[in-house]
Amino acid sequence: MTDSNARIAILGASGYTGSELVRLLLRHPRVEIVALTADRKAGQSMAEVFPQFAPFALPRLTTIDEVQWNGVDLVFCALPHGTTQLVIKKVFETAPHVKVVDLSADFRLRDAGAYESWYGHPHQALELQQEAVYGLVELYRDDIRKARLVANPGCYTTTAILPVVPLIEAGAIEPDSIVVDAKSGVTGAGRAAKENLLYTEVTDGMHAYGVGSHRHMAELDQEFSKAAGRSLTPSFTPHLVPMSRGIYATIYLKTGAGVGAEGVHRVLADFYRGEAFVHVLPLGQVPQSRFVKGSNMTFIGVVQDRAPDRVIVVSTTDNLVKGASGQAVQNMNLVLGYPETTGLEQIALFP
Amino acid sequence: MTDSNARIAILGASGYTGSELVRLLLRHPRVEIVALTADRKAGQSMAEVFPQFAPFALPRLTTIDEVQWNGVDLVFCALPHGTTQLVIKKVFETAPHVKVVDLSADFRLRDAGAYESWYGHPHQALELQQEAVYGLVELYRDDIRKARLVANPGCYTTTAILPVVPLIEAGAIEPDSIVVDAKSGVTGAGRAAKENLLYTEVTDGMHAYGVGSHRHMAELDQEFSKAAGRSLTPSFTPHLVPMSRGIYATIYLKTGAGVGAEGVHRVLADFYRGEAFVHVLPLGQVPQSRFVKGSNMTFIGVVQDRAPDRVIVVSTTDNLVKGASGQAVQNMNLVLGYPETTGLEQIALFP
Amino acid sequence: MTDSNARIAILGASGYTGSELVRLLLRHPRVEIVALTADRKAGQSMAEVFPQFAPFALPRLTTIDEVQWNGVDLVFCALPHGTTQLVIKKVFETAPHVKVVDLSADFRLRDAGAYESWYGHPHQALELQQEAVYGLVELYRDDIRKARLVANPGCYTTTAILPVVPLIEAGAIEPDSIVVDAKSGVTGAGRAAKENLLYTEVTDGMHAYGVGSHRHMAELDQEFSKAAGRSLTPSFTPHLVPMSRGIYATIYLKTGAGVGAEGVHRVLADFYRGEAFVHVLPLGQVPQSRFVKGSNMTFIGVVQDRAPDRVIVVSTTDNLVKGASGQAVQNMNLVLGYPETTGLEQIALFP
Amino acid sequence: MTDSNARIAILGASGYTGSELVRLLLRHPRVEIVALTADRKAGQSMAEVFPQFAPFALPRLTTIDEVQWNGVDLVFCALPHGTTQLVIKKVFETAPHVKVVDLSADFRLRDAGAYESWYGHPHQALELQQEAVYGLVELYRDDIRKARLVANPGCYTTTAILPVVPLIEAGAIEPDSIVVDAKSGVTGAGRAAKENLLYTEVTDGMHAYGVGSHRHMAELDQEFSKAAGRSLTPSFTPHLVPMSRGIYATIYLKTGAGVGAEGVHRVLADFYRGEAFVHVLPLGQVPQSRFVKGSNMTFIGVVQDRAPDRVIVVSTTDNLVKGASGQAVQNMNLVLGYPETTGLEQIALFP
Repeated sequence: MTDSNARIAILGASGYTGSELVRLLLRHPRVEIVALTADRKAGQSMAEVFPQFAPFALPRLTTIDEVQWNGVDLVFCALPHGTTQLVIKKVFETAPHVKVVDLSADFRLRDAGAYESWYGHPHQALELQQEAVYGLVELYRDDIRKARLVANPGCYTTTAILPVVPLIEAGAIEPDSIVVDAKSGVTGAGRAAKENLLYTEVTDGMHAYGVGSHRHMAELDQEFSKAAGRSLTPSFTPHLVPMSRGIYATIYLKTGAGVGAEGVHRVLADFYRGEAFVHVLPLGQVPQSRFVKGSNMTFIGVVQDRAPDRVIVVSTTDNLVKGASGQAVQNMNLVLGYPETTGLEQIALFP
Repeated sequence: MTDSNARIAILGASGYTGSELVRLLLRHPRVEIVALTADRKAGQSMAEVFPQFAPFALPRLTTIDEVQWNGVDLVFCALPHGTTQLVIKKVFETAPHVKVVDLSADFRLRDAGAYESWYGHPHQALELQQEAVYGLVELYRDDIRKARLVANPGCYTTTAILPVVPLIEAGAIEPDSIVVDAKSGVTGAGRAAKENLLYTEVTDGMHAYGVGSHRHMAELDQEFSKAAGRSLTPSFTPHLVPMSRGIYATIYLKTGAGVGAEGVHRVLADFYRGEAFVHVLPLGQVPQSRFVKGSNMTFIGVVQDRAPDRVIVVSTTDNLVKGASGQAVQNMNLVLGYPETTGLEQIALFP
Repeated sequence: MTDSNARIAILGASGYTGSELVRLLLRHPRVEIVALTADRKAGQSMAEVFPQFAPFALPRLTTIDEVQWNGVDLVFCALPHGTTQLVIKKVFETAPHVKVVDLSADFRLRDAGAYESWYGHPHQALELQQEAVYGLVELYRDDIRKARLVANPGCYTTTAILPVVPLIEAGAIEPDSIVVDAKSGVTGAGRAAKENLLYTEVTDGMHAYGVGSHRHMAELDQEFSKAAGRSLTPSFTPHLVPMSRGIYATIYLKTGAGVGAEGVHRVLADFYRGEAFVHVLPLGQVPQSRFVKGSNMTFIGVVQDRAPDRVIVVSTTDNLVKGASGQAVQNMNLVLGYPETTGLEQIALFP
Repeated sequence: MTDSNARIAILGASGYTGSELVRLLLRHPRVEIVALTADRKAGQSMAEVFPQFAPFALPRLTTIDEVQWNGVDLVFCALPHGTTQLVIKKVFETAPHVKVVDLSADFRLRDAGAYESWYGHPHQALELQQEAVYGLVELYRDDIRKARLVANPGCYTTTAILPVVPLIEAGAIEPDSIVVDAKSGVTGAGRAAKENLLYTEVTDGMHAYGVGSHRHMAELDQEFSKAAGRSLTPSFTPHLVPMSRGIYATIYLKTGAGVGAEGVHRVLADFYRGEAFVHVLPLGQVPQSRFVKGSNMTFIGVVQDRAPDRVIVVSTTDNLVKGASGQAVQNMNLVLGYPETTGLEQIALFP
């Protein structure tokens, strides 16, 4: 541990995005975890909550109030939406020097009205909402470097925005007929004990949920509309699939005349050339979700459908890594001036 | 066993649709299984091939050539496509009195050119192809009663055609913008030993396959086009999901003005009122694949998307039952003049 | 529905043993379900709680207090242990004519001291405890026929007692060195929302639990000791395995001199000859749990270990069927004088 | 890449232990992968065989004959048993300077007669068999440092030997009554396309296999007998469980008078104090297989059974890491004089 190591706090360390942050940061050479909070499990060790950490030295879980902010450089906030905005507001009041990477939905929407309409109540930290930078690194890298508060994107939205926004911006597709059929692993639902997330209710079968009403649509609307320069409302249907991790988005697009899959593929291959965490497969190939499991990668495939103007784009991420904690560390690296890939070199665990 | 019991042969009894036929027919009060074939496993008992049948008396597996056709009233053909047409041709030559329910793809397409184009060779039994009746019971019930050769539909197509064809026929939807995002359990791929179907390659992840080129599209084209009165080429993407059984189709539709989800729901609820094996959920509800597992049911749900003219329809079946062997028994019941639901009363096994 | 159909109530219909009873009884030709209770979900339909029943007519869920006992002939009690004894006591006070098949642990132990010691409180219905018959049909068939209150055995214990008790009784094994390594599917833990039963906590891994202290040992002790004529305390370790259904017991036995696997196999094959629901495989073969899934079968295999006096016996059941609701229906058939296999003909659902 | 980086070849890179070696070595700071072989897939890229490696630069697959041995410092051999001994013999003839870590079973047994008896043919490289060092690092560390040929232990045996051998050596247990009930994830069976390893045959159920005859018993016999100073033949039953990775061994032991679980725990805690890859849980706790998934850790738990002289020890590893490729890298680190934990710091991927 050198003086230059950043001191990190994780608020909400007893959930899956929290444990995933711990997994990544324990092996990050430039940080030290100095505080872990979990209000209802305060006093317990991480080994009690996640026994895989038993061999490692980690701070004991505390309440948020017990955190010594003067010893913290950057905080990851992995708390439920709604309470997050109040917590972060208070953190900044107490410790204006800290940087925040927030994994909740609270600061992802720039528009106060959109937030209120999707979440059913006015935002409680409007100034911070305006200040926050949307932390989709490949699209907002420069802004993130300068940010104090980064709103880490959702897992569904990361997976869909990465392939679609460059295509809208390039004018390669008709932005009004986008259909995103998305499938999620079960960790996306978190660790709360709910009947509908029991093994027995989720294994060996699948289902759609939140059809026509899932809140992640707000993020899609925001980013797709920004790219198009006008308001878009894509079709988006999430499904729960019996796998631990993974978002798999099958995206149906109509291209402009003469564009086709080849044109779509060229736009994406060019856009992501040189990116460490986005890999565009050769034209005609589609990824499997397992090829990114445990890694910070996004794999994208492009296939020509039967009509010349219909293209199917498939995109996949690990919802806990590039879809949450990995991207959060990627954001942290930018905010702290570290090389962007530090601590994120893990290769997918397959099989 | 009464004199009136039909004597049944199953060709291809060592595969999953074969074993599923045995499971259903062993408990069917009006049939007797008199012959089971499996060319490469001839000589073995069913208990060796599928030990769950060990407690039951069943004929030993033989080659097709060993079947005594004069003692057979109806034959289920669960063989690979291509060879099937030759086998059935020969069966009819040898034993014109038998009825055939074929579970392969060989007789599903009415158009000889379409068959040749999708399967890469001319059909070898063109007369039979013309004679065959497409065995989607809820749409072709009267024809099936009179048929000698029934072409049992595919699992993907059953799941998609049941909700979509009535909507096309009713003029409730725009037939040119149909998107069928379909997900399949792994039994749909059969029992052949292939690396890509190993547990280790399929579990805890998912992927699309056959994108833009899956042969089941030929059946969709045929039935959707027949309903529309003109040629349609819907988008259809199959996915492999880590579950044993189940087809889950998420279907994106555009409705005519003023129709919306309510209109779509009304058409389907009316069309399937009184049907034993198609259940339309209340408007706004979507099914889970597990609610039909092991049963001959199709569950259909209809949800309004965000735009008034966009509707999402979800449909699910068990690919081995309503998507294969259950529907085959349903066809058998019609062909033999039995009540349609006989032997198909099993309720879904959940959890 | 004929006059002779028995009228059935199910207390605790919103759990998995409750829904499994409904699955079986809906297809039982001699019963009618007249009452379903679920205190916390009273007022809901079964279709809301288990959508697979949506196509079927069933009574709405009520509280226990709302049951009209004069219209009930037999009640299945699928309630948590502890409260069960109070409920059944009251049922008999209100309606002495009803028969009860209890699926909880409350009446399985005959010894009041053993109950108190394992469950931490004195039994609240001691007279009924003495009256209750242990409902392991193959061992207690004659007593069950005359019983008013049947204590349906546990899933682990059914799976272990069926192969071991006949061996102890025959003097074929040394009763002091029995090791039962048992593995359970997740439905064995019920439908309560608990963090440790979430899909994400159970899938793709396994673990032992209750090591050295699981309450099912009390039942093993009771039945093994009864067979031996003296007190036994076998080793028993339960494990949770990522499968929905199934108990799989690997049992390590030492045989008397000259007995070996052949002698063990002969005892079991003789004992279970003619039994509909216990199938002893040929010597040297072991079952898979999937060969009994969804059926009321127990499959037993016997293998010689490397030393001549060491034998490994493997036994498997579906914990929700022969391990719970199927055996309960088997008990009901005996109590009501129906043929023992009525309504239990379902063949295992594999794959 | 510095001059001091060791140049590594992997023979058999298209299997799961091969891909796991690639996963680990790509992130190892002191090695360079210079050759990858896969005879039947020679000419393909690793990305074609394992698409998760698509973003990384790796040598194309070749035949073994194409390897340039003068540019290789150490070779991992991940080939089937039987052929391995011939390949390694030839490698040493061609390139006496290379070090070999062999992941097959070919060099694990020191006794030529035992090899012949378990594998059915005489060993083809007897001198190398005598030279080989058994690569269970925690037990043979000093020998491994000096070895030219390391026989990497099996996954079952690693998991069982680590907890049991120190107990035999300490005289804490009766060595004649050891029962090892072991459960394996499916990757343990490799990537060969076999019907019994299909997803549909393995998911949602479990079974024992190789009962009384599994070849890994030869390794257990060897190491247990060596520790005891006399011949032992423990009971060992392997099971296949629906999980990708993981060995989970439940071990039934009898202790000497006055030892009990506390004594057993003390022996193991003392023995493994300071070991990076073996973690002994607090007395009374048992591990889950998921707490080591993807890591090189072994977790061991000790629990008192009901009788004072009966103890249950539970041990778990990831069969592809500590049970194969991770331990192979650990061996490589010793052979090459690197710090033992280099490149093996990955933390378990849970959930």
